[in-house]
Amino acid sequence: MRAITFHDAQLGYRTDVAQPQPQPDEALLKIRRAGICNTDLEITRGYKGFQGIPGHEFVAEVVAGSPDLLGKRVVGEINVACHQPDCEMCSKGIPSQCPRRTTVGIRQHDGAFADYLTLAERNLHVVPDSVSDEAAVFVEPLAAALQVLEAVPISPRDDIILIGAGKLGMLVAQVLKLTGANLCVIVRREKQAMLLHQWGVATLMPTDVRHRSADVVVDCTGVPDGFAQALGMLKPRGTLVLKSTYEGLPQADLTRVVVDEIRVIGSRCGPFDAALRLLENRLVDVESLIEACYPLDKGLSAFNHAMQPGALKVLLEM
Amino acid sequence: MRAITFHDAQLGYRTDVAQPQPQPDEALLKIRRAGICNTDLEITRGYKGFQGIPGHEFVAEVVAGSPDLLGKRVVGEINVACHQPDCEMCSKGIPSQCPRRTTVGIRQHDGAFADYLTLAERNLHVVPDSVSDEAAVFVEPLAAALQVLEAVPISPRDDIILIGAGKLGMLVAQVLKLTGANLCVIVRREKQAMLLHQWGVATLMPTDVRHRSADVVVDCTGVPDGFAQALGMLKPRGTLVLKSTYEGLPQADLTRVVVDEIRVIGSRCGPFDAALRLLENRLVDVESLIEACYPLDKGLSAFNHAMQPGALKVLLEM
Repeated sequence: MRAITFHDAQLGYRTDVAQPQPQPDEALLKIRRAGICNTDLEITRGYKGFQGIPGHEFVAEVVAGSPDLLGKRVVGEINVACHQPDCEMCSKGIPSQCPRRTTVGIRQHDGAFADYLTLAERNLHVVPDSVSDEAAVFVEPLAAALQVLEAVPISPRDDIILIGAGKLGMLVAQVLKLTGANLCVIVRREKQAMLLHQWGVATLMPTDVRHRSADVVVDCTGVPDGFAQALGMLKPRGTLVLKSTYEGLPQADLTRVVVDEIRVIGSRCGPFDAALRLLENRLVDVESLIEACYPLDKGLSAFNHAMQPGALKVLLEM
Repeated sequence: MRAITFHDAQLGYRTDVAQPQPQPDEALLKIRRAGICNTDLEITRGYKGFQGIPGHEFVAEVVAGSPDLLGKRVVGEINVACHQPDCEMCSKGIPSQCPRRTTVGIRQHDGAFADYLTLAERNLHVVPDSVSDEAAVFVEPLAAALQVLEAVPISPRDDIILIGAGKLGMLVAQVLKLTGANLCVIVRREKQAMLLHQWGVATLMPTDVRHRSADVVVDCTGVPDGFAQALGMLKPRGTLVLKSTYEGLPQADLTRVVVDEIRVIGSRCGPFDAALRLLENRLVDVESLIEACYPLDKGLSAFNHAMQPGALKVLLEM
C-alpha cells in the first residue's frame, strides 16, 4: 500500500509498504481523509523518536472487522490502552494515560497517512451520516480542544485569554466560546482574526493585552515564550491550561506560580463522543480551517505546506 | 528601639530605630518571639528588593490598640490588604492576593525582628492561653502548610510524597499526616528522619524513590532541581504542589505536564484560625523543630545559624 513514512530522520512517500493485518480485537480501516497536526511536524524534528507511519487525525471506512462496524465510517481514539486489571490508569477509567499504551502515529503504532490502518475496535466511533469527511477528520483535535473544559470549570463570569491561534487554538477558541465566558484570543495574523470575528470571538493584538487580566489563560502556542507570556496575563489564583507540547525545556517563573497561587494544568486527548455531537449539531465551524487538501502521493508537499508559518489545517485525501 | 535591619544589601543589628506609631486601624505590638524563615534568608540575598526590618513569623503582646485586644497575646496575618470595594481580590474574599497589599517583613511593611511592630488590627488573632509562645510563633508557617489542603483535595486513598524536609516541609509533613493519606517524605538528614519517624511518618532516601509513584507531590525544596525531581515522581494526572519560592527561573519539562496531564499548583499563605486550633489541640508538634533561640541582640548570629544546611527553626527572643 501507499504511505508517508518517517525513518532515519527522513520523511518519505512509499508505495511498497505492507498492508497491515488486523489482530482479533482490531478492525482494518481504509483511510478516507487525514489531517496534519503540529505533532506530526514535531515528529519530523525527532519528537519522541517516532519511526513509522505518522498521522493520528483521520476518518476511515471499516473494511474488515465486527459485523456492526463493517462498512461504517469511523474516527478513532489514538491511545491504545492495555485495559488489564493490574493497570491503575485503565482501572481508574483513564485509558488515555495507560503507561503501556501505544499511540496511533506517535508511539509504537503506525498512523493514518496511508491507505490502510489497523486499530483496536473499542477505539472506534461511528460517524453520523450528516457529518462530512471534511468535518469528521477534525474529531480528534476537537476532542483535544474539549479536554480544556474537563481540566478547568469555566463559567460566563470568567475572563479568558487564548494565545496561539493555530490549528488547535482555533478549535479551542470555538469550544471556549460555547461556555459564554468573556473570551479574547491573542492573534497576529489577519486570516485568523477574520475567522474569529466571523465566529463572534473578540481578538487583541499581542501588544494590547493587559497584564494580569485573565482568570484562565489557555496556551496553544507550543513555544517556550508562550508559557511566560501566558503566565504574565493571569490574575492571582488564575489557571493556566497548557494545550500544546513544547520544544525543549522552557524556563518557568515558578516563584510567580507560588506567590500568586497559580494553577498550571496540562491537557491532552479528549472526548470523541462530545466532539462528534458538536459537529453533528453544527456548534463549531471546522471546514473554514481547511487550507488545502492534497492526494496522498503529494504528501510531502502537504507537509511543506503545513509547515508554513500561520498555516491552518492541511488534509490528505486517500 | 532595637531591630535587625536589611539595607543596602547588608543585614545589621541596630539599637536606634524609631519606634513605629500605630495608624488608627493598627495596634502597637511588643514582639515576644519571632522565627527565622527561608524567605528571610532569601531577603538577605536580595529577594523582592526588600529594605527595612525583616521578620514575619511572630507572637506579640498588644500594648496599644482596641480595648478588646489590649494586653492580649496575638499572632498576625502578614498580608495587609486594601479591603477597598474596587479591589477584585479583596471583594472575592482573597485579601492575601490583594495587588495593593503590603506584606509584613517582605514587601513595603516593616517586620517583626524588632522590639515593636505596628499591624492592622483586622490581621490579628488572639492566642489561647494553652498555646505557648514557642508554639504560637509557628502559626504563620503552619497556616502556610495548611494551605496545601486548600489547594488540593487529599484523601486516605492518595499516595503522597513530600520533598524538602526543611523548616516548612516538616510542618507540611505533619499536616499531610493528619489526612490519613499514604505519605512518604524524602529525607537525607538523620535529624529530620528521626523526628518524622517519631511522628509516624514514613521516609525514603532520595535514591530509593520510585519513578511516577505518587498522586500528589509537595515540593518544599525551593531549589530548581526540586521541581524536576518532584515532576518525575508523579503519576499521570497527578498534582504537584509548589510550596516554596525558587531562586532564579527553573527549567521545567512542561511537555511532560501536558502529555501526562499534570496539575502544578502554587500555594502560599494559609488559615491562621485552623493553625491555632491545631496547636491548641496538640495535633502537631512544633516545639521539636526549634533548634535554638537567640536574644535579639544576637540576631546576626541567629541568621548565621539559620543559614547552616539542614538547620530547622531558629527563634529570636525579645
